[in-house]
Amino acid sequence: MGEDSGEFGESTKINHKMENVEREEEIDPESNPLNEPLLKRNRTLSSNPLALVGEKVSYIESLDYEINENDLFKHDWRSRSRVQVLQYIFLKWLLAFLVGLLTGIIATLINLAVENIAGYKLLAVLKYIHKERYLTGFLYFTGINFVLTFVAAILCVCFAPTAAGPGIPEIKAYLNGVDTPNMFGATTLIVKIIGSIGAVSAGLDLGKEGPLVHIGSCIASLLGQGGPDNYRIKWRWLRYFNNDRDRRDLITCGSSSGVCAAFRAPVGGVLFALEEVATWWRSALLWRTFFSTAVVVVVLRAFIEICHTGKCGLFGEGGLIMFDVSNVTVRYHVMDIVLVVVIGIIGGVLGSLYNHVLHKVLRLYNLINHLAVALFTSMCEYGLPFLAKCTPCDPSLPESTCPTNGRSGNFKQFNCPPGYYNDLATLLLTTNDDAVRNIFSTNTPQEYQPLSLVIFFVLYCILGLITFGIAVPSGLFLPIILMGSGYGRLLGIYMGPHTNIDQGLFAVLGAASLMAGSMRMTVSLCVIFLELTNNLLLLPITMIVLLIAKTVGDSFNPSIYEIILHLKGLPFMDANPEPWMRNLTVGELVDVKPSVVTLHGVEKVAKIVDVLKNTTHNAFPVMDDGVVPPVVGQANGGTELHGLILRAHLIQALKKKWFLKERRRTEEWEVREKFTWVELAEREGSIEEVAVTSEEMEMFVDLHPLTNTTPFTVLESMSVAKAMILFRQVGLRHLLVVPKYQASGVSPVIGILTRQDLLAHNILTVFPHLAISKGREKRN
Amino acid sequence: MGEDSGEFGESTKINHKMENVEREEEIDPESNPLNEPLLKRNRTLSSNPLALVGEKVSYIESLDYEINENDLFKHDWRSRSRVQVLQYIFLKWLLAFLVGLLTGIIATLINLAVENIAGYKLLAVLKYIHKERYLTGFLYFTGINFVLTFVAAILCVCFAPTAAGPGIPEIKAYLNGVDTPNMFGATTLIVKIIGSIGAVSAGLDLGKEGPLVHIGSCIASLLGQGGPDNYRIKWRWLRYFNNDRDRRDLITCGSSSGVCAAFRAPVGGVLFALEEVATWWRSALLWRTFFSTAVVVVVLRAFIEICHTGKCGLFGEGGLIMFDVSNVTVRYHVMDIVLVVVIGIIGGVLGSLYNHVLHKVLRLYNLINHLAVALFTSMCEYGLPFLAKCTPCDPSLPESTCPTNGRSGNFKQFNCPPGYYNDLATLLLTTNDDAVRNIFSTNTPQEYQPLSLVIFFVLYCILGLITFGIAVPSGLFLPIILMGSGYGRLLGIYMGPHTNIDQGLFAVLGAASLMAGSMRMTVSLCVIFLELTNNLLLLPITMIVLLIAKTVGDSFNPSIYEIILHLKGLPFMDANPEPWMRNLTVGELVDVKPSVVTLHGVEKVAKIVDVLKNTTHNAFPVMDDGVVPPVVGQANGGTELHGLILRAHLIQALKKKWFLKERRRTEEWEVREKFTWVELAEREGSIEEVAVTSEEMEMFVDLHPLTNTTPFTVLESMSVAKAMILFRQVGLRHLLVVPKYQASGVSPVIGILTRQDLLAHNILTVFPHLAISKGREKRN
Repeated sequence: MGEDSGEFGESTKINHKMENVEREEEIDPESNPLNEPLLKRNRTLSSNPLALVGEKVSYIESLDYEINENDLFKHDWRSRSRVQVLQYIFLKWLLAFLVGLLTGIIATLINLAVENIAGYKLLAVLKYIHKERYLTGFLYFTGINFVLTFVAAILCVCFAPTAAGPGIPEIKAYLNGVDTPNMFGATTLIVKIIGSIGAVSAGLDLGKEGPLVHIGSCIASLLGQGGPDNYRIKWRWLRYFNNDRDRRDLITCGSSSGVCAAFRAPVGGVLFALEEVATWWRSALLWRTFFSTAVVVVVLRAFIEICHTGKCGLFGEGGLIMFDVSNVTVRYHVMDIVLVVVIGIIGGVLGSLYNHVLHKVLRLYNLINHLAVALFTSMCEYGLPFLAKCTPCDPSLPESTCPTNGRSGNFKQFNCPPGYYNDLATLLLTTNDDAVRNIFSTNTPQEYQPLSLVIFFVLYCILGLITFGIAVPSGLFLPIILMGSGYGRLLGIYMGPHTNIDQGLFAVLGAASLMAGSMRMTVSLCVIFLELTNNLLLLPITMIVLLIAKTVGDSFNPSIYEIILHLKGLPFMDANPEPWMRNLTVGELVDVKPSVVTLHGVEKVAKIVDVLKNTTHNAFPVMDDGVVPPVVGQANGGTELHGLILRAHLIQALKKKWFLKERRRTEEWEVREKFTWVELAEREGSIEEVAVTSEEMEMFVDLHPLTNTTPFTVLESMSVAKAMILFRQVGLRHLLVVPKYQASGVSPVIGILTRQDLLAHNILTVFPHLAISKGREKRN
Repeated sequence: MGEDSGEFGESTKINHKMENVEREEEIDPESNPLNEPLLKRNRTLSSNPLALVGEKVSYIESLDYEINENDLFKHDWRSRSRVQVLQYIFLKWLLAFLVGLLTGIIATLINLAVENIAGYKLLAVLKYIHKERYLTGFLYFTGINFVLTFVAAILCVCFAPTAAGPGIPEIKAYLNGVDTPNMFGATTLIVKIIGSIGAVSAGLDLGKEGPLVHIGSCIASLLGQGGPDNYRIKWRWLRYFNNDRDRRDLITCGSSSGVCAAFRAPVGGVLFALEEVATWWRSALLWRTFFSTAVVVVVLRAFIEICHTGKCGLFGEGGLIMFDVSNVTVRYHVMDIVLVVVIGIIGGVLGSLYNHVLHKVLRLYNLINHLAVALFTSMCEYGLPFLAKCTPCDPSLPESTCPTNGRSGNFKQFNCPPGYYNDLATLLLTTNDDAVRNIFSTNTPQEYQPLSLVIFFVLYCILGLITFGIAVPSGLFLPIILMGSGYGRLLGIYMGPHTNIDQGLFAVLGAASLMAGSMRMTVSLCVIFLELTNNLLLLPITMIVLLIAKTVGDSFNPSIYEIILHLKGLPFMDANPEPWMRNLTVGELVDVKPSVVTLHGVEKVAKIVDVLKNTTHNAFPVMDDGVVPPVVGQANGGTELHGLILRAHLIQALKKKWFLKERRRTEEWEVREKFTWVELAEREGSIEEVAVTSEEMEMFVDLHPLTNTTPFTVLESMSVAKAMILFRQVGLRHLLVVPKYQASGVSPVIGILTRQDLLAHNILTVFPHLAISKGREKRN
């Protein structure tokens, strides 16, 4: 197939003898294709195009969530004793426990660090202000923030670019079957922890929630593989977890633990993973995930109890319990529903607007420097409070409550005389967690002036848009909560005379509506807010707000995570096929691909080396010619499809020099002497590492025992919509297309479909006429 | 195939000309098989073997959750305008809204009725006791209970046997793809409502929770099909919902609404459907289900507000808000975890014991008469309180609180002198909801004597076992809660000196642990208890209790719903394949079945009539012979697999007399003149209704446009485990097995697998040697 010659990397000699070339998603990024293939793919993607880190380009690999049922696996399966199975189950639970335990401990340490660093910083600044040394205070404040941001950014840029950003889109892609390189390593974990502490302490408009999800997933992945890449524990039993399926389950546990640790919301964490992050889900996993989050909650609770005794510095006042309104009697009337609907609609519109503008901003991100963001944030947080008028304290409040100075709390004195407080400083010159707690505060209808809230809201809109893209670990939750609570409370002030609902609850509902309008989750957000606010009476109105905001938002654009996934070019497979996919068959789809490369059951070494060097595909169908099917009255032989063999296994066979002098089938014991199933589950090595002598080139390899005999197949007449459902539901990497004809001379496999082939975007490049009927409605 | 001759009903003439006979799960129950087939199936099943209703035998049908992509569907799909699609989406949401609204209203009405009937009954009884007319009181009490039970039972037996029992196992089976006849009809709905009111008011040991789930599902199903079978609204748009897929989604909404209405737990309801009831789940459905439960909660709240003004008779005191402990400060220490673990372990052991004994009791159920149960219950509830000693009221309580008389509440006076109360009467001579509320009451450490609690616990153990099987609508939740709270509180009394945990919370934890030990849910139970108790501080210990109880219970036996499903013989497909299924290929499985019956693309009418009359299969592969595949260098023709045609569509073709004089392919417009996609989605009619003249018998039918061209297929070398995952994940009814050989003379289809073929039990009857490796561990 001459037109494909440009496909292959310059380093490999192009071999034109090959008749059949199957193409796969992994293509060398250095290659320079001269001829565009018909099916255009995103063959390379930057793992962090948003993080300003030199736009490093790396290529992705698909994960194998399907069980590779070759002879070795089957033997291993049969021979596992009951004790071994119990050991495996015990280890699975032990790992779930450890994921929860470590995530809980690390989350507590991050909270401790942030509260103490930010707390002492703010104390010092307030002291300068109290002495009216405003410039010194400003320089001190900006300087420290600058240093903290710089540390976070330099770590990310130099050591772990993948640690920048929230990490949730990449985790979502991983669980969908797309592996972003270096996403779950030990370096990433450490940089994420330190970077998150730095960025949050610097008072930037970002949260530790998203990073905690990533941290939980990193812990899970590292535990599953027995430690960092270089220092792995080679405990025999842990090696059973070194496969994509078990790691997927562990990372699901890790991400729920992260959400749980961020919001102290165990049920919300499980639901978040279920609704937003995970692609596949089983009820057994629900249970294990729940166990992990239960452990996290117990750890957090234990730390809070210890810190209540005052041993944790400034910690104990905040950090975890973000806003507890359980002591507030929630009152609302049926008429208040109208207001609630209004909040929902505004949340939906603002949320989708936020998504839209953030999308534009991220595309232009090269223009913005992260240190400029730190400077701007510091300037605004320090300078804007001077614009606010001092408000006299409500005389009914005890003197120790208003004004507060020297500790976290409402009614910051800032530059005001005693007995007065600066409402904008209460919101800006504090940690983000405290800001949320202050703006959510209930039974304080006179605390904030509308102008201060307008400034707060506008500032956080701007910060929320420019901060997200900088190269530090950043979460999306907190910026959105801050923005949403601003407009919610503002609405509460204007609607105050007409409603029973407290202004603090307006702020909570505003935050919820903006979250739903931007992130488009419902059930998990509702449970997270339920667990955060600790007030079940809020549930019905929260539900209404969330449903409306999501509906309104969905009518404008996709969720923020989908936008980021798309921006990053991750080949994420959607849950529902596009309507036009029903009008295309997989046969038509494979027709525009080059035909497949197949191998014989017993294949010459030279052919295998040739195929491995000259193609970049990860799987090859294995066939036997001249087999007589066991059908009565059948005379002439046919072709038998034996299964699918992975590139990694071919390389292992070459590396271990499992060669035969003559063309023959091997016995079962022969292969078991050379290979174990656990070894095969690891996918390492490349063809460049293999040295084969010219003598060996003439020998043979029996591929039968290494072949997965149970690949999933579809008829060529299958619609792409159904094939996609199969692909996603079962968690495939390769899907074989078999002919609907049965006749001699027809190949038993007419094509292989991979993730990239089934992506709507890629199909539309080849079949643009289908786009005519393309609409937003997905009808499955 | 001679050995199959006995398979066919006596009413049809046996035609031995048929070479290929495919067998399917639906087999005439009147048939009398002379020769046992190799693969033995549960070919008949009693829809309610537990309900003592003459053991009526009915046969089940599998549901088609897959999209039947024939030419008509494709045309319909392409031609739907944007407006039509929006109309469909709007209607989907409108139906979800109506499901929530109607479920909420009916639940409120049931609560109103139960509280008033039971309330006035108890008031009258207490009046007799106050006058020391004990015998009259007993006769009055027993008489009314007897009448109420009788009404409930007679309605179930005569009009709707499917209304007996909780209904949850059947709903679970429906969502898995098994249709139990008459499960979701209008009669069932009405009988369930009235029967539930009667049985609960009669003070039987059963709850309205399970029946409410069934009621919600009935409402959903009836709304989806536009009304009861005889009086359907033939609104054109509603007909788009008359297919198995949309009805499945609606019934999922209905079952969550039911749980929500039972416990006033919207999130719990959604999770219950997700964790326990549903087999397939999509995040779009999560959202719609959540919308339904939100509507239910709003309706319930509105009614409670109305009833607070006293317009609802005795309602307003109870019924819905079962136990609110939000005002209690929950205190526990790390050391209390040990106690919590103990509760969990006991709950797990007791729960699995309950499952075990209930299983035995249900098998022996013919011996027990439901009226005897009513009598026994009345006797115990009335008589046992006389065994309890009168306890003096705590003088610190206000006089209006202790003793109570003439209304629901703690400290029932019963036969005691003023200033004293009878603790057993407080628990027994009241509605079940009130009993739960009383035993959960907090800050009342001295209220119950250990002996009374022992009596209470033992009594409800007995009642819980014998009541479940009687022919009235009954739920499992409440009996288990009553039992669990009994032992929990008992434990609380003995552990009182060693712990901070309140006795009421012990009762709550006991109930939770027994639920988890018997029903084996975790996340949904946790959320339901969270929403019931309205106290988030309980969450961590509830989680621990639930996890332990479930783990302990799982090590003994399956969950109670699985046991009932198995008892009823419903072919439920498990989520995980058995380990030994990896050692069997689908090729081996279809080998022991008779070979498939295939049809030609253009088939003679006589052949179609013959096949329909002489087989009971529901789908036939359609093939074309002598087709030349479009492969270069291919000379001789082969066989082409065109797809799969359903029995219902063949019958429609015969009914509409869509016959051709000559053997030819039709044009696309020809079929559209005769059929619409909506008509084809309805599966009605049988071959007996079709009259074909002998002249017509010689004519032809073009099956191509009616054939589903996109059936799912597997290679014959596929393992049964993977085939089962595919079957369940995609929601199939038929799975074609295609050969791995490619040669002339080989049929493109070598078998069809249905639900029955993939059930572990059925496979083991044919391959008993596989059972050797059978263990409880499922490793997928």
